[in-house]
Order: sequence, then C-alpha cells, then structure tokens
Amino acid sequence: MRAATVRDGEIVIEEHPDPTPGAGEVLVRVRAAGLNGADMMQRRGLYPAPAGSPQDIPGLELAGEVAALGSGTERFSPGERVMAIVGGGGQAELAVVHERQLMPVPEGLSWPQAGGVPETFTTAHDALFSQARLRLGERLLVHGGAGGVGTAAIQIAAAAGARVSATVRNEALREQVQALGAEALAPEGFQQAGPYDVILELVGAPNLAGNLAALAQRGRIVVIGVGAGAKAELNLLALMGKRASIHGSTLRARPLEDKAIAARRVEREVLPLLSCGKVSVPVAATFPLDQAPAAYDRFAAGGKLGKIVLMM
Amino acid sequence: MRAATVRDGEIVIEEHPDPTPGAGEVLVRVRAAGLNGADMMQRRGLYPAPAGSPQDIPGLELAGEVAALGSGTERFSPGERVMAIVGGGGQAELAVVHERQLMPVPEGLSWPQAGGVPETFTTAHDALFSQARLRLGERLLVHGGAGGVGTAAIQIAAAAGARVSATVRNEALREQVQALGAEALAPEGFQQAGPYDVILELVGAPNLAGNLAALAQRGRIVVIGVGAGAKAELNLLALMGKRASIHGSTLRARPLEDKAIAARRVEREVLPLLSCGKVSVPVAATFPLDQAPAAYDRFAAGGKLGKIVLMM
Repeated sequence: MRAATVRDGEIVIEEHPDPTPGAGEVLVRVRAAGLNGADMMQRRGLYPAPAGSPQDIPGLELAGEVAALGSGTERFSPGERVMAIVGGGGQAELAVVHERQLMPVPEGLSWPQAGGVPETFTTAHDALFSQARLRLGERLLVHGGAGGVGTAAIQIAAAAGARVSATVRNEALREQVQALGAEALAPEGFQQAGPYDVILELVGAPNLAGNLAALAQRGRIVVIGVGAGAKAELNLLALMGKRASIHGSTLRARPLEDKAIAARRVEREVLPLLSCGKVSVPVAATFPLDQAPAAYDRFAAGGKLGKIVLMM
Repeated sequence: MRAATVRDGEIVIEEHPDPTPGAGEVLVRVRAAGLNGADMMQRRGLYPAPAGSPQDIPGLELAGEVAALGSGTERFSPGERVMAIVGGGGQAELAVVHERQLMPVPEGLSWPQAGGVPETFTTAHDALFSQARLRLGERLLVHGGAGGVGTAAIQIAAAAGARVSATVRNEALREQVQALGAEALAPEGFQQAGPYDVILELVGAPNLAGNLAALAQRGRIVVIGVGAGAKAELNLLALMGKRASIHGSTLRARPLEDKAIAARRVEREVLPLLSCGKVSVPVAATFPLDQAPAAYDRFAAGGKLGKIVLMM
C-alpha cells in the first residue's frame, strides 16, 4: 500500500507492506483521512505516535470500507462504511483498527466529510461533555472557532442548548462561524463578551489569564491545544475565588478502552445529529494522497474554515 | 453578647447586640469555635466576610446549643447540640445560623472537638470527594498534613480506602501525623514518593510545578490554601499529557444551598466515622474567649497538630 510518510521533517508518499488485522481488528480500505494539528507536529518530529501504531505514517482519523476481518470480530461486515480515530497510520490506503474504535458512517455523509469527523467530533464531544460537563443554558467560549475541532464544538454545543461564542482570528471567516451557531468574536474582544461557564482552549497559554478573568463562578477551562505556547502564569487565588477548574486533555495517548468509550458516546450523541443534518462537517479543501505535502502546507497556513482531508 | 472583633488589624473582645433568628434560622449559644487560616487574613483586613454575615466578628465554624428558633424551623429543638460552618460571626457567645447549615453534634464529641469539626471536615470532604472524586485504592498527597484540614483529610481519605501521604514541615509532628493514617514526608521529599492520583494543596503556589510532575495520569490537584503564594507558572502541555485537572475551591463564599448540600454530605459520610471513633479531632489547644488575641497568635505561629479552639 501507499501512505503518507514522515522522512526528515518532510511528508513523502512511500510504499509500505499491507497491514493484516489481528484478533478483534478490522482492515479498512481508507477513502478519506482528515489532517490535524498533531500531524503538523509529527512532521517536525515532535509528537511520536503511541506504541502499537505505525511510527512513520501520520494520520489520526480515517473513513473507509471494511476490507477484511480479524478473528473474533462481530460489529461490522465487509464493505460497510466505517470511521475511527487511530493512534497513527490513518493517511494510508489501508489501515488496521480495533473494531471497538470503529463507528458506522451515517448515510448522507460524503467520504471527505466522514474523513473529517472522528478526531474533531470525538475531541470536541469529549472535551465539552466528558471533561467540562457542559449543560444546556451555559455559556461556552471556543478559542479557535474556525478550525476542525472548533467548528465541531460550536455545533454540538449549540445543539445541546449552550449559548456559544467563538474567537476567530481571520475576519473573513466570522460570518461562516456565526452561521454554525456561535457569536463570532475577534480574539482581542473575548473578555468583554463573558462571563463564560466553559472555555474550550485550542490556542494556548497566551489566553490563560484572560480566560480566568472571563470565567463565571464554577467555570471550567479545558485545554486541548497549545500551538501558541504552553507555559503561563496561573493565579491560584483567582481559581479558588471562582471555584473554577482547568482540565488538560488529549485523545491520542489514551488506551483502547478509553477510546472505545469515547467512540460509543459519539455514536449515541453526535451521529444522530450528523444523520439528520442538524450538524455539518465543513470541509475547506480535499487533496489526493499524492498531494499530501501540499495538503500539509495548506493546513499549516491556517485561515481556513473546517477540515483539510486527504482522499485515497 | 461578647464577641471576638476585628479592630485595625487586632482582635479585641467587644460587646455586640444579641442577634435574633429570622425565618428558617436558629439562635445558637456558642460553646466552642475553631480558628482557621481565613481568620488570620480577616484580622489583617484581607478577607471580608460575605454579605449577610457579621462583618467585624470573625469565625467560620461553631458548636453550641440551640437557644431559640426562628419561624418555620423544623430540624432541631431547644437545647440540642449543633455545629455548623458560617460565613462569619462564629467567635461570639451567640450566633444565628440557617437550620439547613446546622449538623447535629455526635454523642461522645467534646465541645472543643465539635468546635473544630465543621470547617475542617466539610472543607476536606468537599475537596477530596466532591471536587477531586477520590476513590478507594487511589494515592492521595496532602500538602500541609498537620493542620486542621490536613488532619481531617488524612483520616477520611484513609477511611475511604485511599493510600495517603502527607507533607509535614515540623519534623516533631511527623509521628503523630503517621498515626492518623498517612505516610509522613518532609516537604522536599514529596516528588520521590509519588505518583499521586489526587493532591490536596493547602500550602500554595511554590508546590505547583512539583505537584504536576508528581501527578499520575488523570490526576487531580485541588487547591484550597495559598498561604505560601498564589502565582505560579503552569505548563499546559504537561497538564494535557497527563489528562490532569487543577481545581480551586473555597467554602466561605458559597450560597446557602451549596453549604447545605455540603453539610448533608458530611452528616451522611463523616459524622458516623466521628461517632464510632474511627476518625478523631486533634485539638492542639483551647483558649477562653477573653484570650482570643493569644489564640490568634498561637495559630499564626504554626507548628501545631490539629485545631486551636476558642471556648465561650
């Protein structure tokens, strides 16, 4: 099979041996695989894949058809449309995934859309509901509202009855973010529009002091992206006075059982919203696998709305 | 009535009008009232009492007998032994408390012990179980294990099946802390003895970096005291990598319903342990109300095991 491959800080397309599914695993013929911030870090050699995942093939999510079944599998049949988060190796023509991590692809979702669902919606759902325990009527701020996770978070939070604001650096995208269900703010204006019960931090340390100042009593900050910096001063007395909490989270390093639980929650709470069209998957651009280097450059350039997806 | 009173950074004993209980409130003839770190701050003019509480009479906890009932009360009868956390005004001969904040005093608990129970055990129970969701088998570190909240936290965590370590600055007290159910550590040695699932921070900012380094995957830090400093650098990437969380909490500013819920939990989960003697209330010293200034000086000097209690 061919796969996007990390070689000395560059992405190249290389031939790899076809993987074979073990017990409980499914071989997926990949049709689409979304790009994520972690891929940019892995290209630079900064974010190694967890043990058990391909080390040199990036890709944290994929959608495709069941090509073969390992022993003891029972959830899917050959030819079914499936999607999943994976520890790595998603940007390849074939990938092996444990069946407990797989989700069915809802009817009506195109391959580019399906390839952009697993990482973004699982990350957003886990951060908002499993970590921050967002409730209807609460006020949510999403820092970085135009990206893959941001557009997913805005839509599922609005669907759950939260009142959503989002910072969007690129002014040209604010109207589209607004259409997803959020009040779109310039990054420098977010404090005035608070207080917020939950803040989803996709940008990083520079926002921390402002986040704490703009947080409501008993507010929760969930940090899942630190591209703009990781170290910030924290005022513990302010945290106490607001009875607030700060949560850090990642999906990639989780063990199988945690990823499977997250997948079951997305199946139950998010896939119905995708099926009925209440929630959409904005795809900024697709690139064929051969043009993976260009896809990475497009992702790294920023300023897009939604996902960049590789098509196999 | 006479009461400890804050005047220009000093504690004096002054005469105040007797309070009268309103609807749902109980007049308590105070027998004993524990001192807490917040009293030291209030003496210095730094920690004003919440609205609705006496502004110039310190005291966050009390135990005594029901002296009179306001309209609509139903939980207690005159003469019954009761105790409670209050927003302020506990260090007086009489105090008015909403009946939903009151708890019965278990038989066998002396007045000095009862006066030291409400703030410390409610704070410890709330931080460990309501905030950090401590589970049996988990490893807990208490920073500041010899104080009122520290000794309470060690005992109820051990009773719940957690494995407890505690830092104790005063070497002479380590054996007594060990007897409460904790491995007693010098403050500089806590990182080597980890990792910990939960860390209860009663000291402050200087510990934050070490706490995060010594935290287990999915660990929780609860900050309820910052006497040694409030501002610290936080590494958000480390927080993400451990899928950890940092919670700030205080009891004093909570609304009635939250304090009442905390009291019901202590009644259900802690009072039975005090009744049967599985958990004790170490009292370092008692002072009559007239000697409140000396009691404050003793508290501020530190190096004690358990509570300093004023007796009325």
